[in-house]
Amino acid sequence: MSPAYNFASGPARLPDAVLERAHDTLLLRGADGACALERPFSSPAFRATLERARQRLAALLDLPAGYRVLFLAGGAMQQFSMVPLNLLGPSRRAAYADSGYWAGRAIREARRFAEVAVVARYQGDTPLAAPPLENWRLPDDCAYCHITPNETGEGIAYPALPNTGAVPLVADATSCFLAAPLDISRFGLIYAGAQKNIGPAGLTVVIVREDLLQREARYAPAPYCYRQQLAENNTVNTPVGWAIELAALVFDWIAESGGLAAMAEANRRKAERLYHAIDTSGGFYRAPVAHGHRSPSNVRFQLTDERLTEPFLQQAEAAGLTHLRGHCHVGGLRASLYNAMPEAGVAALVAFMADFARRQG
Amino acid sequence: MSPAYNFASGPARLPDAVLERAHDTLLLRGADGACALERPFSSPAFRATLERARQRLAALLDLPAGYRVLFLAGGAMQQFSMVPLNLLGPSRRAAYADSGYWAGRAIREARRFAEVAVVARYQGDTPLAAPPLENWRLPDDCAYCHITPNETGEGIAYPALPNTGAVPLVADATSCFLAAPLDISRFGLIYAGAQKNIGPAGLTVVIVREDLLQREARYAPAPYCYRQQLAENNTVNTPVGWAIELAALVFDWIAESGGLAAMAEANRRKAERLYHAIDTSGGFYRAPVAHGHRSPSNVRFQLTDERLTEPFLQQAEAAGLTHLRGHCHVGGLRASLYNAMPEAGVAALVAFMADFARRQG
Repeated sequence: MSPAYNFASGPARLPDAVLERAHDTLLLRGADGACALERPFSSPAFRATLERARQRLAALLDLPAGYRVLFLAGGAMQQFSMVPLNLLGPSRRAAYADSGYWAGRAIREARRFAEVAVVARYQGDTPLAAPPLENWRLPDDCAYCHITPNETGEGIAYPALPNTGAVPLVADATSCFLAAPLDISRFGLIYAGAQKNIGPAGLTVVIVREDLLQREARYAPAPYCYRQQLAENNTVNTPVGWAIELAALVFDWIAESGGLAAMAEANRRKAERLYHAIDTSGGFYRAPVAHGHRSPSNVRFQLTDERLTEPFLQQAEAAGLTHLRGHCHVGGLRASLYNAMPEAGVAALVAFMADFARRQG
Repeated sequence: MSPAYNFASGPARLPDAVLERAHDTLLLRGADGACALERPFSSPAFRATLERARQRLAALLDLPAGYRVLFLAGGAMQQFSMVPLNLLGPSRRAAYADSGYWAGRAIREARRFAEVAVVARYQGDTPLAAPPLENWRLPDDCAYCHITPNETGEGIAYPALPNTGAVPLVADATSCFLAAPLDISRFGLIYAGAQKNIGPAGLTVVIVREDLLQREARYAPAPYCYRQQLAENNTVNTPVGWAIELAALVFDWIAESGGLAAMAEANRRKAERLYHAIDTSGGFYRAPVAHGHRSPSNVRFQLTDERLTEPFLQQAEAAGLTHLRGHCHVGGLRASLYNAMPEAGVAALVAFMADFARRQG
C-alpha cells in the first residue's frame, strides 16, 4: 500500500484491511466455479452475500422493526428521481430543505415530478450555516420532506434533525452515513451512495419504512420501484454483486473496529484536530462554516491569500496528501475524513499545513 | 484458479487473464493515493480509464462515425424503460419483436410508457425458432423497433437481422455482444449488460446513433437521459468506476486474442462441438431449438428422460461442471459459452455427457 493519504470526497479511500481481504479472495473460485466477481444472482452464494450485507448493516444501525434495506445499482443521484416517483403517491407536493449544492440538485430533479416547496435554506454568506431548524411550513398534502444532513461540497452539517411531525423525513445521507450512530426511526426513508463509508462507487443503500411502500409508483421504471425491488429480492435490475460483497466486508470492519460509536469518536477527534489547526493558524487558513454547523466528514478551508491555493495543492500532493481541492462549485480546499481515513492521515495533513504556513511566512 | 468450468448464463465466467491482471493491480495506489476501487470521477485517472474503455471498444467494433458510447450503472433491464423514455419522442408507438423471455420483459416494461405493437413472434413449439424475418408491419409513427437478437433463456438466436427500413433498429444484445463481429451501422441503438462478455455485473454498455439524441426525454429521470449522460461525460449518476476499468481489461484481452473474428471462430467451434454431441447422442440428449436458430452463446438441451435431469446436474457439479441448470422459466439444461469459456471447458462437458449417458445406458 502506498503511504499517500487520499482525502477525496468520494469515491473515497477504502479501509486497507478491506482492500486486503478483497485481494485475498478475488481469485478464489468456490465449489461452484465462480469467484466473487462472477457470482450468479440465482446462486445460493449470492443470496447469502446479500443477506449477510443486510444483516450486518442492520446490526450496525440497530435497525428498528418495520424497515427494509435495498442495495441498488447506481449512485445517490438516482434517488433524486426515485424518491418522488415512489413516495409522492396521490399527492403532487413535497417539501425540501435547501442546504447547498447537493440539496439543490435533489430539488431540481424533484421539480420534474413534483410541486416542490423549499421550506428552509442554508445561510450562504460566511460564516455558512445549515438551514435553521425552526418554522418549517410544510405544505398540506405534503408527501414527504427531504433533507441533506451533510453537504459534501459546502462542508455544512445540520446540528440536529428537524422535526417534521407526521410527514416522513427523507434524507440523502451519502456523506455522513455510518460515520456515527443514527436513529433510523426518525426517518421514513434514508439513502446513501456507497462511495464514502460503504464501499466502492456504483452502489446505493436505501432504507425504507414499510408503510411507505404502499404508495403507488405508477410512473417509476421497474428498477426504480422500491416495492418491486423488495418483492424480487433486490434483483429487478442486475445488482452490483461484488460491490455488495465489499460493502459486507466494510460492515465487518466497522463492527470489528468498535461499531458506529467508535467511528463517531475517531471521526470527532480527526475533525477537531483539523479544525483546530485551521482556527489557530493566525488567519493563514480559514474555515468558512460556522461553529456547530461544520461537517466532520468534509472539512472545508481556504487560504486567506488565495494565490497560495495552487502551490498548496501541488506541494501537498508531492507530500502524498492528495485530492484536497474543494468542490468545483465552491473552490478552496477540502479534506474528507470518512471512516477509512486514519488519524495518522490527519496528523500528516496538519503537520504539512503548519510547515507550509511557516515556509510562506 | 479452480479447475471448475462455470457455465452460468451471467454473471458469467471472466477471462482468467483479466482476473489475474485485476488482482495484480487491485492494491496499487497511484501517485494520487487512489487505487482503482477508489478513483475519484473528477480525476484525470478516471477520465483516462473511461476514454480508454471507449476507444478500445470502438476499435474492436470498428465503430462507424456518428455513434456515441456510454457505460451506465445498472443492468440491461434498466434499458427496457430507458429506451422508450428517450426514443419515443412525440410518438407514443414502438414496435417490438417477441423472441422469448427477455423480449417479453422488454415489451411488458415498454407498455408502461408506449403503445407497443408486437410485429413478430418466435415459434414456441419444438423445434423453437426465432421470429420470422419477413412481413413485419411497423406501425405509422413508429419511433423504433426493438429486438433481442439472442434469447439467453430459450437459447434462440436470430439467423439474421430484420430490415426495418427507416425505423431505427434497437437491440438488447446482452448475451451476444462481442461474441462475433457486429455491423453497428445497422442499429439506431444497441445495448448490452456487462455480465456476459464485457465485465462484472452492474454495468451496461449503450451505443447510440447521434441523431436519436435529438429526441426529447421529458419524463426520463436524469440518470436515464442518454443526452444528459453524454453531455456530462457519463457521470450524471455515479459511474461504476472499477467495472469500467475491468471492461477495458476485457477489451484488451479480446484484442490480444485476435479480436472479434477470433472470438466468433472459437465460439463457433465450441457451440458446434456441443450441439454435435447432443445431436449424435442417439436421442439421450435433445436440443429443442431448430437448426439455424440455435444460439452459439446459450446452448439449451434436455435429457429425453427428464428424471435424469437432477442426477445429471449433481454429477456434473461434482465433476466441476457448474451452473448448467436451464433458465427457471424453461427448465432443462443450458451451457453458456461466452468468450471466456475455454474450448477445454466444452471438451470436458462433452466428455462428461458421453460418460453420463454410458453409465445410464
